[in-house]
Order: sequence, then structure tokens, then C-alpha cells
Amino acid sequence: MTLPGPAPRDPIPALRDLLGERLLTSEAVRAQHAENEAWYPAALPDAVARPASTEEVSRLLALCHAAGMPVVAQGARSSLEGHHLAIRGGIALDLTGMDRVLAVHAEDLDAVVQPGVTRETLNAHLRDTGLFFPIDPGANATLGGMAATRASGTTAVRYGTMREAVLALEVVQADGTVIRTGSRARKSATGYDLTHLFVGSEGTLGIITELTLRLFGQPEAQSAAICRFPSVAEAVATVIATIQMGLPIARIELVDAMMVRGFNLHADAGLPEEPHLFVEFHGSERGVAETAALFGEIAADHGGQSFRWSQKPEERRALWSMRHNAHHATRRLRPGARTVSTDVCVPISALAEAVAVAQEEGRARGLMQAIVGHVGDGNFHCGILVDPEDAGEMKRVKEFTDLLSDLALRLGGVVSGEHGIGMGKIGKMEAQHGPALATMRAMKEALDPKGILNPGKLLP
Amino acid sequence: MTLPGPAPRDPIPALRDLLGERLLTSEAVRAQHAENEAWYPAALPDAVARPASTEEVSRLLALCHAAGMPVVAQGARSSLEGHHLAIRGGIALDLTGMDRVLAVHAEDLDAVVQPGVTRETLNAHLRDTGLFFPIDPGANATLGGMAATRASGTTAVRYGTMREAVLALEVVQADGTVIRTGSRARKSATGYDLTHLFVGSEGTLGIITELTLRLFGQPEAQSAAICRFPSVAEAVATVIATIQMGLPIARIELVDAMMVRGFNLHADAGLPEEPHLFVEFHGSERGVAETAALFGEIAADHGGQSFRWSQKPEERRALWSMRHNAHHATRRLRPGARTVSTDVCVPISALAEAVAVAQEEGRARGLMQAIVGHVGDGNFHCGILVDPEDAGEMKRVKEFTDLLSDLALRLGGVVSGEHGIGMGKIGKMEAQHGPALATMRAMKEALDPKGILNPGKLLP
Repeated sequence: MTLPGPAPRDPIPALRDLLGERLLTSEAVRAQHAENEAWYPAALPDAVARPASTEEVSRLLALCHAAGMPVVAQGARSSLEGHHLAIRGGIALDLTGMDRVLAVHAEDLDAVVQPGVTRETLNAHLRDTGLFFPIDPGANATLGGMAATRASGTTAVRYGTMREAVLALEVVQADGTVIRTGSRARKSATGYDLTHLFVGSEGTLGIITELTLRLFGQPEAQSAAICRFPSVAEAVATVIATIQMGLPIARIELVDAMMVRGFNLHADAGLPEEPHLFVEFHGSERGVAETAALFGEIAADHGGQSFRWSQKPEERRALWSMRHNAHHATRRLRPGARTVSTDVCVPISALAEAVAVAQEEGRARGLMQAIVGHVGDGNFHCGILVDPEDAGEMKRVKEFTDLLSDLALRLGGVVSGEHGIGMGKIGKMEAQHGPALATMRAMKEALDPKGILNPGKLLP
Repeated sequence: MTLPGPAPRDPIPALRDLLGERLLTSEAVRAQHAENEAWYPAALPDAVARPASTEEVSRLLALCHAAGMPVVAQGARSSLEGHHLAIRGGIALDLTGMDRVLAVHAEDLDAVVQPGVTRETLNAHLRDTGLFFPIDPGANATLGGMAATRASGTTAVRYGTMREAVLALEVVQADGTVIRTGSRARKSATGYDLTHLFVGSEGTLGIITELTLRLFGQPEAQSAAICRFPSVAEAVATVIATIQMGLPIARIELVDAMMVRGFNLHADAGLPEEPHLFVEFHGSERGVAETAALFGEIAADHGGQSFRWSQKPEERRALWSMRHNAHHATRRLRPGARTVSTDVCVPISALAEAVAVAQEEGRARGLMQAIVGHVGDGNFHCGILVDPEDAGEMKRVKEFTDLLSDLALRLGGVVSGEHGIGMGKIGKMEAQHGPALATMRAMKEALDPKGILNPGKLLP
């Protein structure tokens, strides 16, 4: 028989000594950090901590580690899978105050930022350099949060995801140790790839306190267009042909008729309620013209018509702003409803089948949904409008999302392309990974043996 | 005092039962698998195993794991840092017999291969599909070996490295468990990135038994050129300006005057013994012409002249074959010598300084070296010709390589861009990674607690 050791001390007083007024325990502030954009129930943290430096994050983690208290990193809290919810209490680690752009190396096409910098803030900062940061998940998320969820969005088909965009990280580990995972060099063959281990780890292996990010030169020319199609199948066929021809597109996005209705309600878009593709080309003046002409031919072969081109920056901004507000526009379709968002990603050859099944099976279950997709990557979302109090409806939604996940796996794809696991997809990890799940558990055990980092997320 | 347990049984008889004649213990075969391309002393394995399937690799590892016997994966054995040498004996796991292309999904631009397929074999297999696999380290290495060392080469500036080229792996872990690390989907946000954990792990975390690789469409047009410069500094300035302008180049390679002398000796190249750039452009006919013209202007600004263009496939092949034989051509400069190859990679803004220091310090130490570089990535190699028996010379070489590594770290770079750690750079891991080295050790401990996988490599 082993005798219990001394109970770990409550770390809150020591955290108050460390952070002063930046440790908040009022009901109102905790309630604010308990909410989410999706449909998950609110989850109150014991306290909200607002560190100002890596040093403070390190000391905070050392204290929480000693006490066995959960720490849940939070950024813009725009996650759609409940990643940032403190479902087992503990500290909501609000990193939005660490929001400085530390360096821009224009000549090397990289920038060093704190985790609370948002993508829009970074791009505003870069405006006069001729450079930009391309990853664009729609929401004005923090870059730390985007790295932690391996986010991507509309430009991944051209510029990759946060997997490709992060060159190096500074990470505070569970016990407070601070490490750097890489350098500013473009290539490295110097041991295990810790950068990629932390990108997508959803705050469960360490806290990202600094990011070195790849930047790109602003293209000489940009051109965007929307174009309507007689059916989702024809729009998807256009996408597949475009990708397989290797056309250098910067964005290629599908929206179905229901989504267009949402845009009309939300943004007064005045579009015919039919499936559309939103596309964009980046390059030299000539290159963009050449690509756009080729795309026009492919689209016409599949019944694409009513092309509306936008070359001017403000027109393009308006177009993508409409697309980025898909989440809010979807909600206009059923006021008061919450949104369950699916996120499967399949090989492009399987995309038409996957979208067709999603449409049919959603309809068969009487679900109201709008479909949007980063279809150039084989990734699409069904935004299903739900009343979380309606048990019957939630049961049908669960059946539908399970069916879609199983379909993605059968087609050689994944249950999440970019939203992450969080709480929402945790039940799919076994089916997705099989024996590799034990390997992931070994990583977690090695780096967070006490399980204080975002407990209850990612790993079942 | 603890009593020793029963000594683990010699696994060789059980391995012979498993593999029959594909377990080889003759002196001649073991000696063949003890050699390397660089300057490291030969290292005899206890036996050479030639498995034919994942199942056999799994059973072999289970037996070696139980017995605590080292297992060292081998492919083409073209490593330059002694990765594949069985320095603590054990089994040389020769994977070259697992050499089947399992699937080509042309519509999804991916292929599934066994680890013993070489990059040239894969490209020969793809010839009629209009697709190709771009990663090109020069040597006709196996794809398993390339993934394990995170190899890259001349095309990384356009197509990335093995880090970007591998979509998913099948891996046999130390105890024989078989896992899959990913899928054929282009994006995933479904937990820890095990694919990237194994890419670059140099056979120390698991044995790669299958790879899913990204393919690319053959560009409509390709054009290559060589061009000479009055100095290395001017050639490097051309590279920096080209990268910073965002010109879409497919390859941009530096060779110094000494390397050109090697080409003249080895391939009767008939080139003036001055620094040269080798470049290549991929794209549409128009795009290639546009880019080549712009590059010509940049080069001319820096004294570039005597452009020799190659559009025909056989001319381009001859050009790159000459470049790829740099390792052998270097040896012609000092017959009988061995080669020590440096491999630093720095941010592009620091490239001119790094190359200049390498030239001066090599000269100051009386070392004979040829410099070649994947300079678009900030990565270059000094091929130093040495007599490993000459203790004084080897001491000067050690001083020089230490100096270069320290310089790379000071400039924000890495001690290896693509050759890997193996035995050669192991003494630099502490300086490169600091506290993150403990994190790497935790990974190793978690996945290979008995330390049977390629012991003595990568981690000091």
C-alpha cells in the first residue's frame, strides 16, 4: 500500500503573485472565455491568465505542472471544434496580449511573431513591404491558434497550410521548459521535426509562444472571378479538371445553392441561387491572363456561365469577404440555430462522390445545410443548422456526420482537413489512425506526463 | 544488488528461420554492407537481412527487439554521413529488395511505393503518365532512404524537399508494430503529424516500409542554362536577387572554379574554370521565356556571361548529369582522396557571407575543396578532399567544419540542410538544438526504449 503524498497546493495564489491583475477570476471574464463559435456547451475555466511574455508562460506552466492544474491555450477563440474550451476547468491561457510582430526579414521572406498576432494584423504590418502572409482560414484567427490547429483555408491550393507556413516555433513545454524547434533556414536535416510535431498538436503538447513564418511576395497581378454552374457535380468536375491540368490557381472555392441563399440574405449579394465557383489567380500579368483564359475554357465545358471578374483590390476584397462570412451567412438561413460543421478531405478523384453523398444523405435526413469547400484540396464543409436542444435532430446530425467520416476514410481521406479534432472529432481518432493512435499517445505521455495541457482534446 | 536476468537469446537462428537464404552472414556480403561513400571507417554488421515484405520487417524487428539487437536500415547506401553503418554491429536491414511501385494515382498526383524503389526507377515508371517525382539529390538513392534523411537536392527551390513530398508512410516500429502515419488526402488536421516525425528520423524511430509520395505534372516547357561569373560573390548576388524577386525558378545551382575543373577532368566539360550558375525554368512556353529573360537581365547586372541554353531533353540531361556527378568529379581533383562534405544552410540574406568565409578559411588552412550549392535554398557544400590517414590534415578539416557549423548557427541557419546528422554531425546537435535536444531524446525513448534502431546515430 502506498500512502498518498501531500495534496498539490492550489496554484492560484502563486499565479496571482506572478501575473497580478492579469490573472482574472471574475465570473464575467471566465464566462466570456467559456464560449465558442460552434454548438458546444460553455465550459468555465477556474481563471483566465493573460501572460505578457514567454517567461511568464514558462513560470505559469511550472506552477500549474506542480499542481496538476489544466492549462488551455486560447487565441481568437474562433475554433469550430471546441479546442479552447476548458472542459476540465483550470487556466484559460489567453495569449491575445502577446501580439507583437517581432521581426520582418523581407530579404529572406520570413517574419517572427508572437502567438497573439492575427493574420490580418500581420498583413497590415506587411503592407509596405511588398510581402504578404497567405494562409487564410476566413476568421481573423491568431497565428498561434492557426498553427496549433494546422489551419488553412481558401489559399491552401497555392500556398499550402500552416504545416508549410511555419518555419520554426518557440514552445513552452508542460513543465515550463522553453525550446526552439527550428531556425530561419529553408531546409534542415538536423534531427526530429519538432516544428511539425507541435503544428496541429492543439495545445496538448506545449504552448506556442513565438512563430517564424514564411512570407510571399505580393503577386504582380491578381484576378478573381465567380461563375455559376448548373449543378454541384459540374462545378466539382471543373475543379478536378483544373487541378489535374496543373493550372496554377490561388483559390478555387465551391458554394452550393443554399450557401448562395445565405450570401444573398447576409450580404445582399444578388446572386442566382445556384452552385458557384469562386476562383483567384496570382502571377505575372501575362501568366494570370493565360491561366484565366484556360480556366474559362474548362468551366465552359462543364456549363459554367455568368463569369464576373474582379481585378480591382476592393472588388476582390468584397468577393472574399462575402465568402469568408460563410459561417455567419449560414446562420441567417435559420435564425437562432447553431452550426455543426463537417470537414472531410478526400483525394480529388473522390471529391465528386463525397459531395454527392453529402447532399443526398443530408436531404434524406431532412437536415438544413449549406456546402462550401476548398475543393482544390479535396476539402469541403457542410454547415448544418441545428437546434442543440432538439435531441431527435441532433441524433440525425450525428448519424450524418458519422456517415460522412466513414465515407472519407473509405475514400482514402481524413475526417478533418483543417478544423482539427478538438472535442468534436475525438470519437473518430481510432478509426482514422488505428495502431498509430498508440504512437500519438506515446508522444503525449513523453511530453505531458501529467496530462495538464488541454486535457480531453485530440486524444480519446 | 540486482541479479542479471537471463541473457537474451541470439536472434540469428530465428531470423534464419524467418528469411532463409535472405539472411546473409558471409564475410563478403557483410563487408559490402560495411562501406560508405564518405570517409567513415567500414563497420561490419553481424548479418545482412533482405526482407521481402512489411510482414517480414515486422517479424524481424520483433525478434531483434526481444534480443536487444541493433537494426540499421540500408537503401542505396549513398548517404554522406555514415547513417547506414552498423557501428554497433547487429542487422543491416537491406530494403533494396522491396522495390515495387504499388500504385500510381495519376488523377490525384500521388504514388505509393516500397522503400527500395529508387527515384530514377519511379520516374522511369511514370514516363507515360505525364507526371514525375521531382526530388533529386543527385545520387540514385532509394525513396525510403531519401525520406529517412529528409533529402532534397537541386529542385528543392521549386518543389520542396522530402518533407513536402511525403504524404504518408507505413512504418514498422521498434517492437514490430506496423502503423500508417497519414492518408492520400492533401490536408489533414487529425492529430500529431507522425509523417513528419519519421521523415528525417534516420532510421532511429522506425523502419519505413511504404511511402505515399506527391507527384507533379511534367511542365509544358523546360529550359536550362549555364552561365559564368567573374566571382562567386557575383554569382551569389545573382541568386539572392532572383529569389527576392520571386522569380519561379526550378533549379539554381552554384559551382565554383575548382568544381568546374573537376567537371573538366571527369566529364571533359570544356568549361572556363570560373564560377558558374546552372539554372532551370519549368512552366508554360511563354512563362519559361518570360522568366528566362528576366533572369538573364539579373545575371547580366552581376557580370554573368557566356549563357549556354539547353531546351532539348538530351542536352538538359547531359547538363544535370554533369552536375550530379559532382561527388565523383571532385574526387578527380585529388586521386585516391576521400571526401568530407559540409552541408550548412543559412537564410538567403546570409549566403554571400557564408560562402565567402568558406572560401577564405578553406584557403587559409591549405585545404583542397570544391564548392557546389543549392543556393536558392541558402544551402551549399564544400567537398573537401582528404587523406583520412593524415592526422594533421584531418585536424585542420575538423577546425574548418566546426568553424562553418558555428557560422551557420550564428547566421540563423543549420549545420545540415539535407545530408543529415548520421555520425558526422552528431557533435553539433547540442549547439543546434539546446534544450530541444531533450525533447528529441524523449521521442526516441518513447518509440525505441531499448535503443535498437540505428544506435549511435542522430542523437548524441
